[in-house]
Amino acid sequence: MLNHIGNNDTICALATPHGMGAIAVIRISGAQAFPIVATLFQSQGKPLEIIGIHPNKAYHGYLINKDELLDEAVVTFFKAPHSFTGEDTAEISVHGSVYVQQKLLQVLVTHGCRMAEAGEFTRRAFVNRKFDLTQAEAIADLINSESEAAHRVAINQLKGGFSKELQVLRSKLLEMTSLIELELDFSEEDVEFADRSQLKALLQETLDKVNILKDSFRLGNAIKNGIPVAIVGQTNTGKSTLLNTLLGEDRAIVSDIAGTTRDTIEETLNINGILFRFIDTAGLRKTDETIEKIGIERSYKKIQEATLVIGMLDATKDYGSMLSAANDILEKVDLRHQRLIICINKVDTLSDHGVALLGRIRQDFNNDAIMLICLSAKHHLGIDDLYNALNQYQTLSSPDATLVTNVRHYEALAHASESLKQVQQGLEMNIPTDLVSQDLRQALYHLGSITGEITTDEVLGNIFSRFCIGK
Amino acid sequence: MLNHIGNNDTICALATPHGMGAIAVIRISGAQAFPIVATLFQSQGKPLEIIGIHPNKAYHGYLINKDELLDEAVVTFFKAPHSFTGEDTAEISVHGSVYVQQKLLQVLVTHGCRMAEAGEFTRRAFVNRKFDLTQAEAIADLINSESEAAHRVAINQLKGGFSKELQVLRSKLLEMTSLIELELDFSEEDVEFADRSQLKALLQETLDKVNILKDSFRLGNAIKNGIPVAIVGQTNTGKSTLLNTLLGEDRAIVSDIAGTTRDTIEETLNINGILFRFIDTAGLRKTDETIEKIGIERSYKKIQEATLVIGMLDATKDYGSMLSAANDILEKVDLRHQRLIICINKVDTLSDHGVALLGRIRQDFNNDAIMLICLSAKHHLGIDDLYNALNQYQTLSSPDATLVTNVRHYEALAHASESLKQVQQGLEMNIPTDLVSQDLRQALYHLGSITGEITTDEVLGNIFSRFCIGK
Repeated sequence: MLNHIGNNDTICALATPHGMGAIAVIRISGAQAFPIVATLFQSQGKPLEIIGIHPNKAYHGYLINKDELLDEAVVTFFKAPHSFTGEDTAEISVHGSVYVQQKLLQVLVTHGCRMAEAGEFTRRAFVNRKFDLTQAEAIADLINSESEAAHRVAINQLKGGFSKELQVLRSKLLEMTSLIELELDFSEEDVEFADRSQLKALLQETLDKVNILKDSFRLGNAIKNGIPVAIVGQTNTGKSTLLNTLLGEDRAIVSDIAGTTRDTIEETLNINGILFRFIDTAGLRKTDETIEKIGIERSYKKIQEATLVIGMLDATKDYGSMLSAANDILEKVDLRHQRLIICINKVDTLSDHGVALLGRIRQDFNNDAIMLICLSAKHHLGIDDLYNALNQYQTLSSPDATLVTNVRHYEALAHASESLKQVQQGLEMNIPTDLVSQDLRQALYHLGSITGEITTDEVLGNIFSRFCIGK
Repeated sequence: MLNHIGNNDTICALATPHGMGAIAVIRISGAQAFPIVATLFQSQGKPLEIIGIHPNKAYHGYLINKDELLDEAVVTFFKAPHSFTGEDTAEISVHGSVYVQQKLLQVLVTHGCRMAEAGEFTRRAFVNRKFDLTQAEAIADLINSESEAAHRVAINQLKGGFSKELQVLRSKLLEMTSLIELELDFSEEDVEFADRSQLKALLQETLDKVNILKDSFRLGNAIKNGIPVAIVGQTNTGKSTLLNTLLGEDRAIVSDIAGTTRDTIEETLNINGILFRFIDTAGLRKTDETIEKIGIERSYKKIQEATLVIGMLDATKDYGSMLSAANDILEKVDLRHQRLIICINKVDTLSDHGVALLGRIRQDFNNDAIMLICLSAKHHLGIDDLYNALNQYQTLSSPDATLVTNVRHYEALAHASESLKQVQQGLEMNIPTDLVSQDLRQALYHLGSITGEITTDEVLGNIFSRFCIGK
């Protein structure tokens, strides 16, 4: 159990965004929350100390500090454990003046409150077992969510969907570990409580599930931070023009000089509730110019990191050049992990002969993992087809699937996966039971660290310091 | 009575500042507020429609729109007329995610709410007679207040202090008007219901009170927007250095070249709860340089607008030069309305002879409206004396005095004052009673427009459009 210094203090903080607004809310949590607020607040002309405090009731009245009227306010009290933090909590809603906000916090501090640290309210809620660590992290994700998909993933995690799966896995592993450790107690008698073949099957099942969760991070992270889409192709194929058309503004510098885009440009675009992070890359061509070389190297790196790749071809080129350019792109894409959308640009300029050529190209790239779209980025032709292709990607993320979006969870799952593989090897090689047990304990530790069943002050400090003050 | 279009709509808006935070509050007001929110909200697994709504109770639960979970929320209902607007009102407190805020507002609009205009909640409160117009304006002032003094003035106005004085004045005037108008009804009989000498005394009393309120605007406005302090003096007397010392940072460019400060620089500084607006001005010297000439003209203008003037003298100059520089400053200051603080700068460089000179200067300017301070802006000597001199200004504003801070109120008072003077003249010159009555009605109109007893849609539109959305 965590033993954070000052956990028994009464803390206060501004819970609403900084700055001026119609109203601002200040939250106070801790053993002294009720008496401190009651001293400062009068409802219907009487101090709240006299009226008495009824939880979950909104009191209208006035905040008065030593005869000085601070503000009109609405105050609501939440009695432990029926509050966000699980402690006695008061929420004071005042006029959204920056002066009033600061003054009230000052007055609360002189009355014995301490200014809350970042994430301290949520941390207390975790400590008081209002929710587990993945749910606490989901709150931060929810607040930061920028798209419908990211919001949905965070809400699912807040409801504890992820935690339930982990609990099932952990309890199975715990059972396995107990059986194995029972053998250790009877080690001199050489008995086997755990049926080895059954154990191996269970282990494989657990490992598979851990790996599915671990591998969902690629998509989960993409949804949280935007799905990375690299736009690649030779110089002058119209990559920047496409980006500008998609964004509806002149973000990338467009020129006819080959190699205009030297650095990578990133822009996010919300398409039907999914955030896409478009990355315009330097044209893939041989060059002696040092700065452009660096740009091209970056392009290769960006392609590897992308989930989707848009490969641009120039329809005005001859069949051979296009085919070789397409193959260049294909070489850089890993179709096991990535989706490729080949866009044949500048189709507005095509002759009948060119259209015939397109048919051939289409046949050449007849593949489930590759989509082929003809468009003119400049003249806004075929852009809807591209949107549809991007939208198809959306269907890959089923709303019910559990997605890992947090890099901490991903790392813990990766460690757990490694430990489970060690266990597998150990069983195969008949190594001593105590070593197998050690690896099982490692796997349990890593899985437990995700939900916070096992945790350290350092880990918690890291997690909650990334929250905002007042949460 | 006001008849604003769409006054019966149910309106919604974000009430907390824009952006990310721990929580955000969305406010809904109007006849449909309860049913709309009840449709979207489930507490303890049951729709609120089924549980029933108890006002002033904070419900914890989930916002669900067509099976899609939007967010966890705390909802409080306020029943008309016991709400801020006087209408049925709901306040929804959600996680402070920008996405959730936008999504929820969207959902509310699809359920029949309209996005509120700026100040529309407060406007409805005024229309429903929750408070008068000066109190509505006090809310905007309170939200904007940047200092303790501005906050105090706004809170006083919110409590209705100003309105009460106006009501007393108006009722006296109304009585007077009725008596005079009674004479009109009996005009053929040539009777005098209103004792003329009593009427004149009452009129003088009312006019004096209106003028006191009107004249308090100079200080009231200064407290609201900061007391303007002009720092003036010849070039190289150390005006910019003093400003930098006061502000504790290098805001003004300081150099030894005469005429460095070409434009006026304004900085605000909160000294013991009073906001001062310091204006560094171009050095007052004769010049042929066009840009500098403009700067000097602006200096003169700024001096006229200031409530306090700090006149800088250079202690290293001879007695004659200092005296003439001081007289130059005095010429520009109107001691009936303005306070002058003469600062003799660079006193760290003084010889014994110089100290003797200071004594003479001190005698020359022995005057209640002038304070004389010796300091070294560069070496931070005597700065505390200057703070004390500025603080003395603070005592001018008694916390209980009614101060007019609003330019609209000031203008109405000025018009009322004019009308009352017309009445006075009319009575002196024995002009026909119906003309006197007309001027009295004018005065009543202007006083009534302040509290909103008399108002137009245009005036209200002007006032409330300056509020923020959600207030």
